[in-house]
Amino acid sequence: MTSVDTETVADLVAAAADAGWAWAAVPASERARVLDAVADALDAEADRLVPLARAETRLPEARLRGELTRTTFQLRLLGAAAAEGAHLGVRIDHADPDWPMGAPRPDLRRSVVPVGPVLVFAASNFPFAFSVAGGDTASALAAGCPVVVKVHEGHPELSSAVGEVVAGALAAAGAPHGVFALVHDQADARALLVHPDIRAAAFTGSIPAGRALFDLAQSRPDPIPFYGELGSVNPVFVTERAAAARAQEIVDGFVGSFTLGAGQFCTKPGVLLAPADSAVTARLAAAELPGPAPLLNDRVAEGHRRSRAALADRPGVAVLGAPDAPDDAPVLLMTTVAALLADLDQLLTECFGPTALVATYADERELVDVAAAIDGQLTATLQAEPDDVVVPALTGLLARKAGRLLWNQWPTGVSVTAAQQHGGPYPASTAPATTSVGTAAIERFVRPVAWQGFPDHLLPAELREGAAR
Amino acid sequence: MTSVDTETVADLVAAAADAGWAWAAVPASERARVLDAVADALDAEADRLVPLARAETRLPEARLRGELTRTTFQLRLLGAAAAEGAHLGVRIDHADPDWPMGAPRPDLRRSVVPVGPVLVFAASNFPFAFSVAGGDTASALAAGCPVVVKVHEGHPELSSAVGEVVAGALAAAGAPHGVFALVHDQADARALLVHPDIRAAAFTGSIPAGRALFDLAQSRPDPIPFYGELGSVNPVFVTERAAAARAQEIVDGFVGSFTLGAGQFCTKPGVLLAPADSAVTARLAAAELPGPAPLLNDRVAEGHRRSRAALADRPGVAVLGAPDAPDDAPVLLMTTVAALLADLDQLLTECFGPTALVATYADERELVDVAAAIDGQLTATLQAEPDDVVVPALTGLLARKAGRLLWNQWPTGVSVTAAQQHGGPYPASTAPATTSVGTAAIERFVRPVAWQGFPDHLLPAELREGAAR
Repeated sequence: MTSVDTETVADLVAAAADAGWAWAAVPASERARVLDAVADALDAEADRLVPLARAETRLPEARLRGELTRTTFQLRLLGAAAAEGAHLGVRIDHADPDWPMGAPRPDLRRSVVPVGPVLVFAASNFPFAFSVAGGDTASALAAGCPVVVKVHEGHPELSSAVGEVVAGALAAAGAPHGVFALVHDQADARALLVHPDIRAAAFTGSIPAGRALFDLAQSRPDPIPFYGELGSVNPVFVTERAAAARAQEIVDGFVGSFTLGAGQFCTKPGVLLAPADSAVTARLAAAELPGPAPLLNDRVAEGHRRSRAALADRPGVAVLGAPDAPDDAPVLLMTTVAALLADLDQLLTECFGPTALVATYADERELVDVAAAIDGQLTATLQAEPDDVVVPALTGLLARKAGRLLWNQWPTGVSVTAAQQHGGPYPASTAPATTSVGTAAIERFVRPVAWQGFPDHLLPAELREGAAR
Repeated sequence: MTSVDTETVADLVAAAADAGWAWAAVPASERARVLDAVADALDAEADRLVPLARAETRLPEARLRGELTRTTFQLRLLGAAAAEGAHLGVRIDHADPDWPMGAPRPDLRRSVVPVGPVLVFAASNFPFAFSVAGGDTASALAAGCPVVVKVHEGHPELSSAVGEVVAGALAAAGAPHGVFALVHDQADARALLVHPDIRAAAFTGSIPAGRALFDLAQSRPDPIPFYGELGSVNPVFVTERAAAARAQEIVDGFVGSFTLGAGQFCTKPGVLLAPADSAVTARLAAAELPGPAPLLNDRVAEGHRRSRAALADRPGVAVLGAPDAPDDAPVLLMTTVAALLADLDQLLTECFGPTALVATYADERELVDVAAAIDGQLTATLQAEPDDVVVPALTGLLARKAGRLLWNQWPTGVSVTAAQQHGGPYPASTAPATTSVGTAAIERFVRPVAWQGFPDHLLPAELREGAAR
């Protein structure tokens, strides 16, 4: 593994650029084999890596083991998807002398090329799945791009250990030197982000941090794509009839989802809109919430304490439950939709940790008002009955606001699949037409190229006559 | 047609936002019928519109008639492509209790939604095909998005006339009020570009103008996609054997291509690299170029005169032919690849008009040096023999630098097809993963949404069980 412990940023990126040519030339099926080897190596080191993650993050062991399983599953799935080639988007137009636009159509064949070295900013809240060997790294490597990871300062030792396993497996499997590297220093990362040989960047984290990096990437003499997954409140819309029909199920599901992982997921449902004087509202007000769970680290705990206090201080917001609850205990806040709409910027902000807001409405049409008013979201959830009259208006609006809509399910636990969409209008994502989870994530790291009039043997393999497609 | 002659920007964008809901709800097959009606109306008005274009642009009649044919062909093709639905990118994952990532896979179905109102900046050089009813407008409307066009100041009367035909045809075909509007004023366009209800923008034009608008779009509180097609030099790489085998054909093709439309195409081949002391170089030095043709307008003519003079003043650059050639006569400049590489930023810049640079090399490997050194391009052309040893290295490099590669053809005359790719790394495009020509241009104006666990009847039609796909 190359690293700025031993090399300058310039050397590191030069090695990545060199590796890019070799790695792009490796057939995708062979890249998949290499990613399988990386996944196998990480699985084999689980008993060493999980304790490192425990030491640096305060996350429980079962969660970390599950997350590592997800991470290695993802490496294998993305490699296989790249080998299958859906991301190539192959289009073939044979020459057509009668093409009716006023001139004959030439032979045109369109596929994609890898963009080149990708800078990945690791996240804190998934020390495996959105970190050194996480989804961004996996999709860039699967696409044929070298990767430089900016390690998250929340788990540096784990990151170095994962980096060594990944680099060792890559080298053993025959991947080119320089295809993968780590940097630990923020100044090095910023230097890389504006380096001409870095061709795209991916980020998962807070809105202020992501926006600053996005702005830097766009300010380059040659702006590059910056795939930032930033913040989301993930609202839940409960209709009157759903509240009447399934009150306890909705309460249990919501509490389970907003407290899962101590509320430290980007898909945590941060606000639930329910009918005033309904069984859902009553039971939430009386709900016994799970006990305190330690947050990721001191910085996250302090950030949560502050944003919870800020929410609780807004006009019309009441804190449910014991006033002496510890800072890391789950807490529900209560307000009305009217108060929410009057103070949207302050109340509809991500509070990273086990806090959620319940907003009650007097009239179901207020759900539509909220859907119309909110910013871009990763997810929006409906708890509803199939023939509720408000549903078509809600889904119509929410499809414009969110990357994923859920029906009587809960947004935490993002499945890694072909049809997944993890992204949404800003600030959910800085690149809302893309996803950072699922096999379509590969598409972020390729760029289309059309080949006009080429002899068959000079075309990329997937564009030749008779290629398996 | 709504217009800021009668409405404020706020009213206009409010009407567009309202229309967006209705237009998105119109089935794509019906939107195709509406675009057909727009195309028919423009064709029917050709005898009125072409003279207006003649009066404002100095382009010859045959060219303008051909361009209008291309424009209406494009409206019909993009409508039909949207109806066919390739841009929906449908992905369906049925629920899978045994999904091996550690948790069951939910039912997930991914399709796209229109992004909402799109601001289109019209170009000067194609008063029909990249203007009011051009490719950006056609692809946004086909995608289901309302369009506001910033008229190009080079042909305001034509723009108003085309706008009236389009608006009339849209209204007659039943499209919602507000789905299409024009603005003439640059300040209005800038206000629109930062308006919350404008969800994407498209631009074709110069690097400075496009970059300024890109920066403005990215500086919004909520940055939006800005699809800018900026500048390109479109280099041509002639190998030694091609120069020996097909000298006259290459000379004729190059002269024809760089002087086509008086050199005012974004795909004009601006530099040709050929062996020193070859028949190509000798014949180009002696070539009789076509006579002067008027440039688009005075501003373009003056810009061309200045950038030609700047090129001619660089060290190592010689002007071929008569020193007293009129400003709008085609001119070839001659230099060496060594001089080109030493002065790349100044010599490899777009000179909009009938000027091109010929750079001679002593060793074919210099072609690879140039390919490695250049910025992003819309196109790169090889004039080569199929078994030239330099070709694999050249195509490998050029696929990373250009959106379209051509083999023994010429880049002007961009065919509107499914496999077309008109874009490339910056500065060719501000969004290199997209195309502004061809049916894939529709994809710029949609955004993916995943639907998790929805009852069939609440899904978009294309995602339902048993939908035709």
